[in-house]
Amino acid sequence: MLLNMSSETKEERKLALVIHGGAGTISRALMSDEREAAYRAGLQQALRRGWEVLSGGGLALDAVEAAVCVMEDNPLFNAGRGSVFTHNERHEMDAAIMSGEDLRAGAVAAVDGIKNPIKLARRVMEATEHVLMCGSGAEEFAREAGFEFAPPEYFFDELRYEQLLQARREDEVRLDHTPLKKFGTVGAVALDTRGHLAAATSTGGMTNKRFGRVGDTALIGAGTYADDQTCAISCTGHGEFFIRTVAAHEIVSLMKYKGFTLKEAAEQVVHVTLPELGGEGGLIAVDRTGNISLPFNSEGMYRAWMTSGSEAQVAIYPD
Amino acid sequence: MLLNMSSETKEERKLALVIHGGAGTISRALMSDEREAAYRAGLQQALRRGWEVLSGGGLALDAVEAAVCVMEDNPLFNAGRGSVFTHNERHEMDAAIMSGEDLRAGAVAAVDGIKNPIKLARRVMEATEHVLMCGSGAEEFAREAGFEFAPPEYFFDELRYEQLLQARREDEVRLDHTPLKKFGTVGAVALDTRGHLAAATSTGGMTNKRFGRVGDTALIGAGTYADDQTCAISCTGHGEFFIRTVAAHEIVSLMKYKGFTLKEAAEQVVHVTLPELGGEGGLIAVDRTGNISLPFNSEGMYRAWMTSGSEAQVAIYPD
Repeated sequence: MLLNMSSETKEERKLALVIHGGAGTISRALMSDEREAAYRAGLQQALRRGWEVLSGGGLALDAVEAAVCVMEDNPLFNAGRGSVFTHNERHEMDAAIMSGEDLRAGAVAAVDGIKNPIKLARRVMEATEHVLMCGSGAEEFAREAGFEFAPPEYFFDELRYEQLLQARREDEVRLDHTPLKKFGTVGAVALDTRGHLAAATSTGGMTNKRFGRVGDTALIGAGTYADDQTCAISCTGHGEFFIRTVAAHEIVSLMKYKGFTLKEAAEQVVHVTLPELGGEGGLIAVDRTGNISLPFNSEGMYRAWMTSGSEAQVAIYPD
Repeated sequence: MLLNMSSETKEERKLALVIHGGAGTISRALMSDEREAAYRAGLQQALRRGWEVLSGGGLALDAVEAAVCVMEDNPLFNAGRGSVFTHNERHEMDAAIMSGEDLRAGAVAAVDGIKNPIKLARRVMEATEHVLMCGSGAEEFAREAGFEFAPPEYFFDELRYEQLLQARREDEVRLDHTPLKKFGTVGAVALDTRGHLAAATSTGGMTNKRFGRVGDTALIGAGTYADDQTCAISCTGHGEFFIRTVAAHEIVSLMKYKGFTLKEAAEQVVHVTLPELGGEGGLIAVDRTGNISLPFNSEGMYRAWMTSGSEAQVAIYPD
């Protein structure tokens, strides 16, 4: 298995899969052993599911969707089933997916009741001429497309509800957990055997959120991007800063026009561009040759990765 | 008045304002003299209003908002009052505004009943920590902020309604007018005396639109962007292509990292990047020294511009 192989070589292509389960203030002192083990197991399960697709010769697009679905189904992560509560005790979920091969993309914003928003984003990409659908209109599309809706009980979680009540008392908007404050997003990026890249991101947004706020997750170029010429990216963090800097597309541009490596471009955005505005968070990225990068400027980021010929890795804190 | 003056010079800074009222198939054969005169007058009025702000020493941000408001109030343009009808006989308007000085941005998507969506986008930027609000949540924010709502009659236009009925009969989604097919968007970009750039874009979306589709207008980096280091951009066209290529931010990147001039970067995106995917439309742009560019790959683009020391210009077809 070779690194940095050119596209002309006949050798076996390197596969790569990276996933994240959110970044933020993840204090070791406040994290119980049980809880940490549960997060690690959740990440491992998602990584394994995505890797099965990739190593079986499947599409990067299918691998990132599969990995994200596993995290959407796990109440530990703020996406899908584990989504936090809005001010009105509802859920407003965002998700986006993008294919690096042809720059096709699909996304949904502020949807409620959808079991797997990432699947809905994929459907928008494949079954319509649109990229982004939002709110009740997106839910109507989901119903007509025969999508699986889940009742409010499916999304109910005692801890999440406690978080809402506490946030309301304190009258503030929270980016997911406290005291384990975390930017609740999940995401995946992959490179497949055909050399195609894909990225997927999904989130339940912010606890006590109001006014139909949409973060970077659903915005192509901000929280999610994939281009076979350069790389695939999925972000997690204080979304507004990722939108204002068009973070994912900025990494693509630094590689394409400034000649940066993936690592240089990803670290520039996470450690320079975002902090200059006060932006906190991280991202995962994979380039066309299978190099990966997982920088974050917060205390921790739930993450896992695997490439051809290397073991699966899971981490939460800085190395 | 000098072109390309460096920021160190003490000489008077060049002012620049460019506006657009949409791009698309604007056939001369189907355009009556009266209708053309009305469009020209509408553009002139919007340009004049924005220029009054700029030449009075006002902010680029105020100038672009003022110019866009004039077009939102004019039923000829597909934004604000003249917004096209959705499938459900409603209006779903999108708008975004961005300040090049500090990369602050505000946007709303799929809002109904708001007289001037661009003002609401500005309020999101200035009064909240968010960038994008959508749907009923954004309308709730507007109500709490004391925004002006207009009744359905305000937005009712016989021609627009006819267009909806016709589109429904033909069971398709229309990007604004037929037979004067046009991508209905309005926008403005400006450079002010302090050297700050700003961009604003507003749209009524697509006739017979369903499913809460959101185009590029409301997406920072796609249809709207401003950065004092490089330029300000407002796009108009088939929005999905502008989203997938992150068109506005791509121009910024080509200037910043590849050393392209504004004209080179804007033309690259409009005449190469977008057409490669099949994307039709145009954009307006102004750089930090007051150079302007207004490329489009469609048959026409409603546009007007003015810079220090030059007369106001209005055009619809290619020169």
